[in-house]
Amino acid sequence: MDDIATSYLRVTSVLEIERAKSGHPGVALGGAKIIYSIYKNAFFNPKDDKYINRDRIVFSAGHASALIYACLHLFNFDVSLDDLKSFRQLGSKTSGHPEVGVLPGIDASTGPLGQGIAMAVGLAIAEMFLANKYNKKGFDIVNHYTYCFCGDGCLMEGVAEEAIEIAGNLGLNKLILLYDKNDITIEGDTSISNKSNVKEKFLSRNWNVIEVKDGNCSKEICDAINLAKKSVDKPTVIITKTKIGFGSDLEGTNTVHGKPLTREQIDNLRAKLNYFVPDFQIDSKLRDYVDDILSLKMEEYERQKKLLSAYKKEFPSEYKELFKTSFDFDFSKYVKDSSDSKIDMRAAVHETLNLLQSKSLIGGCADVAPSTKVYFDNTKYFSRENRDGKNIAYGVREHAMGAISNGISLHGGLRSFCSTFFSFANYLTPAIRLSALMKNPVLYIFTHDSIATGEDGPTHQSVEQIATLRAMPGISVFRPCGKNELLAGFNMFCNNNLPMCIVLPRQEILDINNSFEKALHGGYKIVSKENSVVSLVSTGSDVVSCYQVAQNLEKQGVIVDVISMPCVELFEIQDKEYKQKVIDKTKKIICVECSGDNIWYKYASNEDCVIKLNSFGLSGKGEEVLDYFGFSVDKLTKQILEILKNS
Amino acid sequence: MDDIATSYLRVTSVLEIERAKSGHPGVALGGAKIIYSIYKNAFFNPKDDKYINRDRIVFSAGHASALIYACLHLFNFDVSLDDLKSFRQLGSKTSGHPEVGVLPGIDASTGPLGQGIAMAVGLAIAEMFLANKYNKKGFDIVNHYTYCFCGDGCLMEGVAEEAIEIAGNLGLNKLILLYDKNDITIEGDTSISNKSNVKEKFLSRNWNVIEVKDGNCSKEICDAINLAKKSVDKPTVIITKTKIGFGSDLEGTNTVHGKPLTREQIDNLRAKLNYFVPDFQIDSKLRDYVDDILSLKMEEYERQKKLLSAYKKEFPSEYKELFKTSFDFDFSKYVKDSSDSKIDMRAAVHETLNLLQSKSLIGGCADVAPSTKVYFDNTKYFSRENRDGKNIAYGVREHAMGAISNGISLHGGLRSFCSTFFSFANYLTPAIRLSALMKNPVLYIFTHDSIATGEDGPTHQSVEQIATLRAMPGISVFRPCGKNELLAGFNMFCNNNLPMCIVLPRQEILDINNSFEKALHGGYKIVSKENSVVSLVSTGSDVVSCYQVAQNLEKQGVIVDVISMPCVELFEIQDKEYKQKVIDKTKKIICVECSGDNIWYKYASNEDCVIKLNSFGLSGKGEEVLDYFGFSVDKLTKQILEILKNS
Repeated sequence: MDDIATSYLRVTSVLEIERAKSGHPGVALGGAKIIYSIYKNAFFNPKDDKYINRDRIVFSAGHASALIYACLHLFNFDVSLDDLKSFRQLGSKTSGHPEVGVLPGIDASTGPLGQGIAMAVGLAIAEMFLANKYNKKGFDIVNHYTYCFCGDGCLMEGVAEEAIEIAGNLGLNKLILLYDKNDITIEGDTSISNKSNVKEKFLSRNWNVIEVKDGNCSKEICDAINLAKKSVDKPTVIITKTKIGFGSDLEGTNTVHGKPLTREQIDNLRAKLNYFVPDFQIDSKLRDYVDDILSLKMEEYERQKKLLSAYKKEFPSEYKELFKTSFDFDFSKYVKDSSDSKIDMRAAVHETLNLLQSKSLIGGCADVAPSTKVYFDNTKYFSRENRDGKNIAYGVREHAMGAISNGISLHGGLRSFCSTFFSFANYLTPAIRLSALMKNPVLYIFTHDSIATGEDGPTHQSVEQIATLRAMPGISVFRPCGKNELLAGFNMFCNNNLPMCIVLPRQEILDINNSFEKALHGGYKIVSKENSVVSLVSTGSDVVSCYQVAQNLEKQGVIVDVISMPCVELFEIQDKEYKQKVIDKTKKIICVECSGDNIWYKYASNEDCVIKLNSFGLSGKGEEVLDYFGFSVDKLTKQILEILKNS
Repeated sequence: MDDIATSYLRVTSVLEIERAKSGHPGVALGGAKIIYSIYKNAFFNPKDDKYINRDRIVFSAGHASALIYACLHLFNFDVSLDDLKSFRQLGSKTSGHPEVGVLPGIDASTGPLGQGIAMAVGLAIAEMFLANKYNKKGFDIVNHYTYCFCGDGCLMEGVAEEAIEIAGNLGLNKLILLYDKNDITIEGDTSISNKSNVKEKFLSRNWNVIEVKDGNCSKEICDAINLAKKSVDKPTVIITKTKIGFGSDLEGTNTVHGKPLTREQIDNLRAKLNYFVPDFQIDSKLRDYVDDILSLKMEEYERQKKLLSAYKKEFPSEYKELFKTSFDFDFSKYVKDSSDSKIDMRAAVHETLNLLQSKSLIGGCADVAPSTKVYFDNTKYFSRENRDGKNIAYGVREHAMGAISNGISLHGGLRSFCSTFFSFANYLTPAIRLSALMKNPVLYIFTHDSIATGEDGPTHQSVEQIATLRAMPGISVFRPCGKNELLAGFNMFCNNNLPMCIVLPRQEILDINNSFEKALHGGYKIVSKENSVVSLVSTGSDVVSCYQVAQNLEKQGVIVDVISMPCVELFEIQDKEYKQKVIDKTKKIICVECSGDNIWYKYASNEDCVIKLNSFGLSGKGEEVLDYFGFSVDKLTKQILEILKNS
């Protein structure tokens, strides 16, 4: 029956693809037994697909989508025949690559290779942390596996390499990676780009390795999965030798990767598989067989639900916390007036993060925690020995850090933060993009946010990073000019179930009066004068400079407002009236930001009214570098006077 | 004497750092013997530091800068005492991290960890390719090693993992990686984030591994280097056990990583090293000793120069080609009139690239060559067996692809291109940033440049990518609307010694009359009407849509110019008069680009006159997705009429 099930999946997949005239038959045919075996063995309830203790299943090779959808349909998830038939069509739930929130049963959006492996590592970390935190004697309410399906491509990606090393280091024994080794990539035989010994590579990173010689033998794969489940202290990779495009005329070739089979080729496939059930239909015997498999899962589900009910009675506050989607925290209590001295925003973020010490929040840095100061006090690193550690030592692995953070926050019951220097945000942009696409609440905290970073020089000084994040849909960037605005940023993260970035300076800045309440509107007048003729719009440390510039200008008889715009995205969703009051176009609007972003042309009176950075920075003392590029208070004052003179 | 040399380097490094009050004593003290051994063994002429056949030396751990500069000074490069004394100061050549073109003797700009390893792989590829191409019997004019110094951090980075695998796959036997294994990272003992068996990891990737137990023994390190040089078909890693902050009070701790030693700690260091030569001075015995080492290198240099002279006489055209910095190629010959049919821009880039078949240009794709069509015909993959192959199979390793491309182009005598889908440009942004910072002529070709990519869905559809690249200093983005503009893009790359990106659609587009000559100004009127009241400014495939929109509008009595702006950066450096003629602000300027970039607010008449993309795309047929988001010709026509009505 497993063979019939797999034939159903294979034929249905290529039918979906043929109808769509788009998709990837190669992996659908080759990986069918593996994906089927995952669903056969994994624990889930298709009708409660968000159930907290389900096994997680991540398809790092997201181009297996047609196969995944067929499998979800077969296993009674809310994926209809019509859904299968509208594969990859506009408005359909069966999108080109699997997407969280679009279709039931999808635990992570994938497509960009490698990301799925790292997200699976994050899911496995979350499981361990939550199990340690919430399970009580007799109440193993969090106790599940994380399965991840990947191909040759995924394993070449740096993000996967980083994540694999982290998983080995942390001994994530409930992580099972199923590697569909077909030895073919788009450009040809995998050996043209990879002759590494994959088994040895995993062993060197403290993984279990199980080899399955025949990727078409369900028993062998299922046995391997069962063996993997027994691992005590290591994650397991199951290396399964498969044939890309199995059963098709193009089996074993790179052309079958992304080219729909023709009707004739599908007929040949059916003949080869000896499978003639009409298109998209599930044979009644197969239906019964799968229903039997599902009824076992349902029994387990019912058992667990009862356990959970008992847990709820016994441990009501833990139960409540586990199922919360936002953090109740009153940040406004911590609002302070300006101290008129300097403030270290990295110390401030450290303080603010630590207010959340007791919340379900874990995270870490890419080996710069002492510098970004983004870590919890009074806790250890999460490790084999300390499953309650709330800091994660990612090592110098920014990309996996981002993707693993996605996995942690995807799990539910837990959220994640991560941190590095802003210049290195580029290393993890692909992961940030997935946070944004998945609406996944990860908090990215970047420090060292401009050329004022100083001596480390241009490689360590951000320029274009903020432009990327602001141009990226679905994510907000918060660049606060002081502690109160920073609190507003945290408030936003804790109350919205959405990803965001907080961007902070390395250098200390003057502690000016900044508003928690007003910052919750994204932008506001931080200096408001009755007879002002000019508004300076700015963010972060540049607001502080503008604040001082405004004082200089006032001495010269120019009355100036200063607008702090910590979060452009948030400002943009305010009502029109509010926005017009803040950005009052009857005044001269001059925008100042020490970055390469072009967004300020949107608000400035004209293109000459934008003061931005058009080159890389330089090595030198932060203040001198700022001055050199025209961003010191003196130089800004001069430039603004010049602008006013010329207009 | 080697010990004295190393003591000089150690003390001088920490003195530089102490003066600067900024820098990294940990690696300077710990890695001194390794870096000294590299300079002792490597072949170079400090007075001809760009000599083509010098050994290349890349410091992937760029934070060893103080040590590197001390070493360059000791080995008579043009690095003065004053340079050392102005370490990390504004305007100084001794910048925070080593930078190409800023200081002699630097072969690659480093700082962001991992990049250097990948660039070294690129340099080694270039050496092999050029050796194969130019060497003649008795004329080994290209025959050198590439040394790379790295630390624990570099080896955790995905970009390094990817590059290491590629190097093993290609059998780059003249690549020598010197790993300064001090087992300490910024956050503490390396084991908190890494317990992998590094030796096994390299072996699994077809590398030689040599272990040096005492990182303070010159002989052991030099012997290892000499052994590595004998490798026949594999790259070599020399794993050297060192002590971070060697000799200092903070030896072996993470605090010594980035914290300047105090004067007192420096005194203690001197005592420990038994080294009391005054600050920054070179003992005369040491001077003599190093001069002897250098004179051997000079002998070799003189021998090679003679060989090169003879080669020049014997093979004048090869000689000339090897030293060229631009490609003579007349792209204007290939300019064609519009065909009034559809054009496949990926086929066009394939055709255009292949015009350069005979030029010193190699490159490859991240396993999507059949899809981007960016590859040379009639050649093989560069491999162990085919050192003349002009295509490189990078596998699914975008990040290393970018960084290796940097290495190839840094070498001299050769330039490099690389390619993938535009959405995945995010994976290699850190490498593109280094191209830009180094002014290194790499050609990045990205296809599938918008939501029109279609069925693969939002993970495969670019939105914010072009904003990143335009906000990044030092690099130009060319998004041509037709074949002639594409030729202009290639012309720009071939004649400037600068990096650039070419961005192309997946879908076929209408072949409209586009100008090679005018595109060389970055922006121009592609449709120019005498009585126009509106100018539509656009790029790439969106220009084609605007062209059709203009026809629609004309039917409704609205006379419209269309401005094609394939390269904003190029347009911006035109003279003011030209720019004002193209963007004539007396007309309504409406900008249209199916991307998330905010740059168009700079040119548009006001914020309502920018038509851009504010969300991720969707899975579906390309044309339907475009229509859904308002970028079909019909929807654009309506939107523009609406804008005109409201203004």
